[in-house]
Amino acid sequence: MTNPVLVVGSVALDSIKTATADHRDLLGGSASYASLAASFYAPVRLVAIVGTDFPKEHRQLFADRKIDLQGLEEAAGKTFRWSGEYEVDMNNRRTISTDLNVFETFQPKIPSAWKKTEFVLLGNIGPSLQRDVLRQMDKPRFVVADTMDLWINIAKPDLVALLGEIDMLVLNDSEAKQLTGDTNLIRAARAILKMGPRYVAIKKGEHGCLLFGENNFFSIGAYPLEEINDPTGAGDCFAGALIGSLAQRGDISFEGIKRALVQGTLVASFNVEEFSLRRLEKLTMDEIAKRQREFLQFGALEA
Amino acid sequence: MTNPVLVVGSVALDSIKTATADHRDLLGGSASYASLAASFYAPVRLVAIVGTDFPKEHRQLFADRKIDLQGLEEAAGKTFRWSGEYEVDMNNRRTISTDLNVFETFQPKIPSAWKKTEFVLLGNIGPSLQRDVLRQMDKPRFVVADTMDLWINIAKPDLVALLGEIDMLVLNDSEAKQLTGDTNLIRAARAILKMGPRYVAIKKGEHGCLLFGENNFFSIGAYPLEEINDPTGAGDCFAGALIGSLAQRGDISFEGIKRALVQGTLVASFNVEEFSLRRLEKLTMDEIAKRQREFLQFGALEA
Repeated sequence: MTNPVLVVGSVALDSIKTATADHRDLLGGSASYASLAASFYAPVRLVAIVGTDFPKEHRQLFADRKIDLQGLEEAAGKTFRWSGEYEVDMNNRRTISTDLNVFETFQPKIPSAWKKTEFVLLGNIGPSLQRDVLRQMDKPRFVVADTMDLWINIAKPDLVALLGEIDMLVLNDSEAKQLTGDTNLIRAARAILKMGPRYVAIKKGEHGCLLFGENNFFSIGAYPLEEINDPTGAGDCFAGALIGSLAQRGDISFEGIKRALVQGTLVASFNVEEFSLRRLEKLTMDEIAKRQREFLQFGALEA
Repeated sequence: MTNPVLVVGSVALDSIKTATADHRDLLGGSASYASLAASFYAPVRLVAIVGTDFPKEHRQLFADRKIDLQGLEEAAGKTFRWSGEYEVDMNNRRTISTDLNVFETFQPKIPSAWKKTEFVLLGNIGPSLQRDVLRQMDKPRFVVADTMDLWINIAKPDLVALLGEIDMLVLNDSEAKQLTGDTNLIRAARAILKMGPRYVAIKKGEHGCLLFGENNFFSIGAYPLEEINDPTGAGDCFAGALIGSLAQRGDISFEGIKRALVQGTLVASFNVEEFSLRRLEKLTMDEIAKRQREFLQFGALEA
C-alpha cells in the first residue's frame, strides 16, 4: 500500500484572461492543483478551506480522484477568489484581484487520524500557516514546502523559520534570487541550503528545474510544448506530483528525489495544456508513462 | 588526421567593465573565441581582419594553439574595438561603444588551399559577409552560422537568405523570438527550421541549450557555476567547440551534433570563469574531460 500524502494549501475560484481566452470561476488554488497532481501516485489527504459557494462538481472532481476531503473545511462566506491576466508572452502575468474571503481566517486543522502522515506538502500559503501545520504533525518523514514572492516580501522571518523545519523547499528562480539577494542561482541555492532544508528545487518554468543537495546537483529541462494555454498551477502540480511520487516509492534518497522531480515536470507539462484542472481531470498514467519515455530521451546521449 | 575547421568572424580588442573589474584592450571578437575553442578538437583556419596595432602577443596566442593565420588579414588602420559593461546580474549587458575601424571594409578572402575545408563556422559577423564566405567555399560538408540581434534588426533579408545556405544556425533565445516573432521557443525553432537550416541550436545562457532537427529534439542544461567573471564570448566558444568537435569526429548525425553540443557547453563554461581568453589559454583536454564526466552526471538518472 502506497504511503498517503497530506497536502495543505489554498482552494480557490480563479478568473483567468489570456490573449485568446477569458474564463471565470475556474477551480484553482495551490492545494487543488497539487492534490490532483499527487493523486496519480498516492492517496491524498487534502487540508484547505472553501466557502458555502464552493461548487459541488469541484468537490466531486476531488472525490473522483480519491482525494480524501475530511480536511476540507467549509466555512460561512465565499471561497477565495483570484483573477489574473497573462500577456502573449506567458512568462508575464499580472494579478487583477485577490479576494481572500474565507481564506482570511483559515487555521488549518489536521484531522487526528492524519497526524502521522509521513509525506507532507505545504503548498503555497503563508509560512506561519505552514508552520502551524507542521506543529500538528507527528514526525513526518519528508516535508516539502512551496512558497512565493509575496511571503518573501511580507513574512520573511516566518519563512526563514520554516526553512529550518522542512526537508525540501521548492521555489522559482526569481524567488530564489529574491530570498537570498544573489543573482547567481547556484550560489542562491547554496545559501538556501544553509538556511535549513536538505534539498532545494529551483523551478525555471520553460527552462526546467535545478535540484540541489549538500553535495549533489541535478538539472532537467522542461518538456517542450508548442501550445501553452494556461500556465496557472504549473508549480503546484510540480510540487504535488513530486511529493506523490516520493510517497509512492518511499525512496527519499537524492536518486529518489530526482525521479520524483521528473514526475513533477511531466504532470506540470500536461497541466498547462488546458485551463484550470481540465487536462489533469482526464489525464491517464499511460499518457504520463508515454511522455516520460519521450522526455528522458530528450536529455539522453547514446552510450 | 582530424578534419580542419574554417572559422570566420571578428577579431577585436574589448574593454569590459563588471561590478568588480575593469579591463582595457583585451583580446576579443567572435572569431578569436571560436578559434581558440575549436582548437581543442581540430586544426583551425582563421579568417578575420586586424589593424596594424594588433598586439604580437595575441597573434602568438593563436599560433600557440596551432591556429593557422594565413587568412588573418592585416590592414592599415586600427583593430575593431568594442566596449561594454555588465550589471551585477550578468545577464544584463550594455554596449558602451563600437569602433569598427578596419572591420568596416572587411571582405573575407578565403585562401585557395582552404576552399575545400569541410567544416565551416560562420561566426557572428554580418550575414552578407557570411554569404560571401560561403560563395568562396567548395561544397563544405557542414556549415554552422552564428548571428546576433543587430543583424536581425538591420539585415534580416540577408540573414534569411543565409538560412537557406547553411546546415545549422546557433542563436540565443531572445534572438530566436525576435527572428520569428514568436515568444514560444519550440514554435520559434520550428519556424527557423522552415527557413532552411536542418538544425537550430537555441542558446539560453545559464539555462543551457535546446537543439532541434526536423524530427529530433535535445535539451541540456548549462554547467553550474558559482563564479562568472566575464560572460563575453561564451556563445562564440560554444559555436567554436561545437564545429571543432563535429570535425574531430566527422559525425554529423543528430547524435553526433548532440555530443558536439556538450563540448560547446563545456568550453563555454570554462571561458566565463576569467576575462577574455585567459581561461582558454591555459585550459587542458584533461580538464574538459573531467568536467564532462561531472556534467553528464548532472542530468543522468540511474537505470
